[in-house]
Amino acid sequence: MLDGPPVLLRAMRYSLEAGGKRFRPALVLLASRACGGRDERAMPPAVAMEMVHTFSLIHDDLPAMDDDDLRRGKPTNHKMFGEAMAILAGDALVIFAFELLVRSVSDGVTAARMVGELAQASGAAGMTGGQALDIEFDSQAGEVATAERIHLLKTAALIRCSARLGGLAAGADPATVDGLGDYGRDLGLAFQIADDLLDLDGCEQDLGKRTGKDEAAGKPNYALLVGAEQARRRASALVDQAVERLRPLGPAAEPLALLARFVIDRSH
Amino acid sequence: MLDGPPVLLRAMRYSLEAGGKRFRPALVLLASRACGGRDERAMPPAVAMEMVHTFSLIHDDLPAMDDDDLRRGKPTNHKMFGEAMAILAGDALVIFAFELLVRSVSDGVTAARMVGELAQASGAAGMTGGQALDIEFDSQAGEVATAERIHLLKTAALIRCSARLGGLAAGADPATVDGLGDYGRDLGLAFQIADDLLDLDGCEQDLGKRTGKDEAAGKPNYALLVGAEQARRRASALVDQAVERLRPLGPAAEPLALLARFVIDRSH
Repeated sequence: MLDGPPVLLRAMRYSLEAGGKRFRPALVLLASRACGGRDERAMPPAVAMEMVHTFSLIHDDLPAMDDDDLRRGKPTNHKMFGEAMAILAGDALVIFAFELLVRSVSDGVTAARMVGELAQASGAAGMTGGQALDIEFDSQAGEVATAERIHLLKTAALIRCSARLGGLAAGADPATVDGLGDYGRDLGLAFQIADDLLDLDGCEQDLGKRTGKDEAAGKPNYALLVGAEQARRRASALVDQAVERLRPLGPAAEPLALLARFVIDRSH
Repeated sequence: MLDGPPVLLRAMRYSLEAGGKRFRPALVLLASRACGGRDERAMPPAVAMEMVHTFSLIHDDLPAMDDDDLRRGKPTNHKMFGEAMAILAGDALVIFAFELLVRSVSDGVTAARMVGELAQASGAAGMTGGQALDIEFDSQAGEVATAERIHLLKTAALIRCSARLGGLAAGADPATVDGLGDYGRDLGLAFQIADDLLDLDGCEQDLGKRTGKDEAAGKPNYALLVGAEQARRRASALVDQAVERLRPLGPAAEPLALLARFVIDRSH
């Protein structure tokens, strides 16, 4: 289905297949299963989420942005294909995510709904807006509320969307989809705080990228602003809250609760 | 409806409101009218087309791409807001185009259809793919067929899509939508050849951007490759063919025919 000039497709596939945890697609599938949905129907939004996530990584790594040379232990996209091709690979990936949704989701109304949710989560009011705030962030001012808002937009919006799309793929009712979204938002914020903790504590080998760089780059790092101990408590409370949101789903949501616990464990 | 950090919205609006011919939105509206459609229903795809076009201009102008300082007689987006914000403004514009379609087109099935057409025309198999080929273009090899393929992807795909979305907005039958698309493709190629002729002949003041730069930059310029006279003949033949495609629509398509003639006239 994916057609285009070979060099562009190579650049797109390079980052898409560079590994990573596949956290967002896993979340779509688990959220769908928690609502009794079938995996086949959850796959298109799962893949679309990974494409949008990959698009954001490619553009974030650009010299004009975070200027990173390594991602997932490999050279970043622009290091492999040049800046121009990396910009285009990101562009083509986010566009293809929307195409995938409408071509693979057989019910047009559900497809349109998913496109709207994904666009809102990834655009100016979501992830891209968070990246814009990130660029403007003044680490000297050290405002915790601003750092948290950036995390909510830049990271949590897409994770919230993953959980919601899983629910939508399964045909869940609006209240259930909202509950999954709240779970995803809490989890997304905890996920980013855990990442901030790893940036503080981690070693390069484990993560496949430079660490301690938030501080050097003046990036919003929640753990740096409030201290590691308080950051750990906040992340833990957020995960408890996220798990609590799953209660109406009963035992079917157990894997989602385990996933949430896992997010916290990796930062301990 | 458009929400996000003020600095990002300013950057998005700056390029969206920088003027220009509004050729693609005009085409959506005229194609819709030619099929008896109402303007209200054609406005969402018309605005979406302009957003995608603007996204492509912002990214094309970046230092890593064409490195242009002027666009429509004003400083380019990255000259005003910096490279990082320009990349994000482009990202947010293309994402918002899809959101606009699904939020403003009341019929979900039609909205999903439009998303699919727009994604295909603007992604790896369309405009973005054309830009990737453009970057790789070797002007020394001077292959006319390659230059034409780049023009078809980079320029004609979006113009074709504009005409098709106008037909879809009006609820036209598949054969009519296909006819409008063929008209748009022919017109789009003629449009780009006319642009190539202007690049050869034009003066900076008239266009608000540098000219003769294709040759300097080794860009694919059809007029440069086959000569001005043959380029003019080809553009003229394409417009004749485009107008011929409109025949089944009868007198209602007269404005589309006039638009096609106008495209050629500006290069004489």
